[in-house]
Amino acid sequence: MANSSFNKPDIERVFRGTFVHSTRTCALQILEDALLGVDTEGKIAFIEKGEDLGRLAADFKTSDIIQLSQHEFFMPGLVDTHIHASQYSYAGTALDLPLLQWLNTYTFPVESQFKDLDFARKVYKQVVKRTLRNGTTTACYFATIHTNSSLLLGEIANAFGQRALVGKVCMDRNNAVKYYKETLQESQDETCRFIAELLNKKYPLVKPVVTPRFAPSCSGALLGQLGAIAKNNNLHIQSHISENPEEVMLVKELFPESESYSDVYCKYNLLTDKTIMAHGCYLSDKELTLFRETGASLSHCPNSNISLCSGILNVRNVLKHNVKLGLGTDVAGGYSASILDAMRRAQDSSKVLAMQDSDLDPLTFEEAFRLATLGGSQALSLDGQTGNFEVGKDFDALRVNLIVPGGPIDLIQHEEPKILVEKFLNLGDDRNIVEVFVAGRRVVPFTDSKPE
Amino acid sequence: MANSSFNKPDIERVFRGTFVHSTRTCALQILEDALLGVDTEGKIAFIEKGEDLGRLAADFKTSDIIQLSQHEFFMPGLVDTHIHASQYSYAGTALDLPLLQWLNTYTFPVESQFKDLDFARKVYKQVVKRTLRNGTTTACYFATIHTNSSLLLGEIANAFGQRALVGKVCMDRNNAVKYYKETLQESQDETCRFIAELLNKKYPLVKPVVTPRFAPSCSGALLGQLGAIAKNNNLHIQSHISENPEEVMLVKELFPESESYSDVYCKYNLLTDKTIMAHGCYLSDKELTLFRETGASLSHCPNSNISLCSGILNVRNVLKHNVKLGLGTDVAGGYSASILDAMRRAQDSSKVLAMQDSDLDPLTFEEAFRLATLGGSQALSLDGQTGNFEVGKDFDALRVNLIVPGGPIDLIQHEEPKILVEKFLNLGDDRNIVEVFVAGRRVVPFTDSKPE
Repeated sequence: MANSSFNKPDIERVFRGTFVHSTRTCALQILEDALLGVDTEGKIAFIEKGEDLGRLAADFKTSDIIQLSQHEFFMPGLVDTHIHASQYSYAGTALDLPLLQWLNTYTFPVESQFKDLDFARKVYKQVVKRTLRNGTTTACYFATIHTNSSLLLGEIANAFGQRALVGKVCMDRNNAVKYYKETLQESQDETCRFIAELLNKKYPLVKPVVTPRFAPSCSGALLGQLGAIAKNNNLHIQSHISENPEEVMLVKELFPESESYSDVYCKYNLLTDKTIMAHGCYLSDKELTLFRETGASLSHCPNSNISLCSGILNVRNVLKHNVKLGLGTDVAGGYSASILDAMRRAQDSSKVLAMQDSDLDPLTFEEAFRLATLGGSQALSLDGQTGNFEVGKDFDALRVNLIVPGGPIDLIQHEEPKILVEKFLNLGDDRNIVEVFVAGRRVVPFTDSKPE
Repeated sequence: MANSSFNKPDIERVFRGTFVHSTRTCALQILEDALLGVDTEGKIAFIEKGEDLGRLAADFKTSDIIQLSQHEFFMPGLVDTHIHASQYSYAGTALDLPLLQWLNTYTFPVESQFKDLDFARKVYKQVVKRTLRNGTTTACYFATIHTNSSLLLGEIANAFGQRALVGKVCMDRNNAVKYYKETLQESQDETCRFIAELLNKKYPLVKPVVTPRFAPSCSGALLGQLGAIAKNNNLHIQSHISENPEEVMLVKELFPESESYSDVYCKYNLLTDKTIMAHGCYLSDKELTLFRETGASLSHCPNSNISLCSGILNVRNVLKHNVKLGLGTDVAGGYSASILDAMRRAQDSSKVLAMQDSDLDPLTFEEAFRLATLGGSQALSLDGQTGNFEVGKDFDALRVNLIVPGGPIDLIQHEEPKILVEKFLNLGDDRNIVEVFVAGRRVVPFTDSKPE
């Protein structure tokens, strides 16, 4: 025992109770009376049966074990694979136009305000705090074209302890709202500055992501340069694809030499195994195959897709093609900043499709749970660090309590863990998420030491 | 002034601030700086402009005026036109089967437990309190086949001050779960006893509603008797219609002599101007015309319709036919006991249909608001008493505050009332509903004097 634990970090925390998570083979694995140890580096040191306490207890004081109640469980932190931090200020409004008109009317004017760092600070603090309270331990953010406020978003995510990919948005084409765009040179230079400065901060959990807004907003030259920058720095890439029929037509017009929307990105080296593309409602089977071959992933944003009347992603078909898939809130095309909502809407969308095609099985709540946790981590190529309770991964976790004072759920009797999980996924909200951990650090409830 | 106010009840409360409600011609009327007076009978005595305070103030002390803050508004109480109180115990679970199998597997076994009054009391208290907290000032409830526990539901609604129609469920046909049904004679006798005993309580806001479960659970003889009972006592009627394709087929088989599902009910005098039928997803235009002609109304339950893969009601077509329409949670086929959720899901469903048919305009949030308030009151033929802020109606109202400690909404700046309403409808929850009034009485927050 002494030998085998040589050089292992010390155990910092041990929890005992019900743990639920997904594995590659099981969408919802329920571990009752489990013992999970977190080391001083925030990693999961062990996850064992409670009955094995005697064997394990050499490494920690049994009096320090934190025991969950009967109505509690731990689940992995939620992964929001697509969220526009800058659009949070108008979340829950402006849902009456289709995508392209919506961008011109609401989005671009608001995003242009993020030149103002004070405004940016207010909104970015709100969105980081809100998503953390909602259980989002990992967020993949779009900011705006402004480098300094994008850096500020990274600073705020780091300060509050959220795992985040942060993208300074790149766009050198905007005929409708001409004051909100960059030149090709600016976009390239500022992207390089953004990446260098953000990496230079050495935030442990916050990294840059190369972010062409989407093909209609970018010249081919810009797309090519961004592909090169990502490749040279081995960085993540995010963008949008095939969200709305009008947008798909526009891309055909703008890039007549490309065989498909996916082909546009592929050609510019923007489909890699660290790429996540939002939406993909109208991708052909051939394009899905290209995604699988390149290792690129999709972010399914069902609230946004319905709210903007964009389309409905056929999740079964994406899964059949073995394309990595996570869930996104897509604030503010999606009005909710909660991945719990995304799980519900993903099931709704899937049920709508199943009503129209009896060959389609609707998504189960267990599958929605996997998409929101392990699936999201895979989609962001972060499944080496997070996504479930495997030993060696960071402890990114939500402590969920079904019965909290003034909470949204009533229980009539003691229920088995599977029912508790299902009730939480359908009826729960941030009130039930009593603690949030990222890399072993408790980040919710907020403490006074956090910047306010 | 003295003459005109002769015999008028005294003014009990006066509020000043923003009021929003629906009228026949305006889905969302916003009255800024309005003054609303409630008399000692709980009725709206006046609603005027704040600037007219001088003229009005003879009737009350201006020092007693309750001033709303900038982030608050009053809206009419929400009307849940279809909710199974007895199914609340498993809300948020059991959403993996289509209607008929769902009834046999989950619903009937649970409903049979309501023979036990202690169990019934626990669940019914939970559902009345939960829906009140969610802003449901008027609920149209299905209980179970058990008379005494159905009476108990009426007692609890009355005790907590909720306006309610309560139905003892009638069903003399159940081949799948044989222990959960009545004989024809029992159903008739117990319905009469239920009505007589509930009316005898003289609850001011709680009334019985004749409740054949739905055609497949009732013999023609029972339907006929229930039609007669409703007619002889001038009572409300509620049931289900055309929810699911398999159910529609079954009704065709069971009632081969009827031209349509609606025709079954019509024939037995169950379509009246005090009838509300849940769902109606598959009604033909001819059936909708029959609804309009008889004055019968529909309860749109979008969460349930999607959750059970039942179908999607074409709300535009219902409205085009001038059929009265309200929203229902349909707990527990719908997992949420909140009409806020029903408003959101109604818009989602409408957007899904609009994506498939460009001639359909999606439901706006203002229209969803009207369905949830005035529309619901019309659908229940209670619009003489409630549904909006017309003088003479009961004061059924929600005081909504967008910014409450620990609440679900962030505001970056002061927003106009329309934005506040839209944000509340999309992002709000019970935390934002800081007070609920029914017939002038404040029923939320709960006070200690309420039975616990």
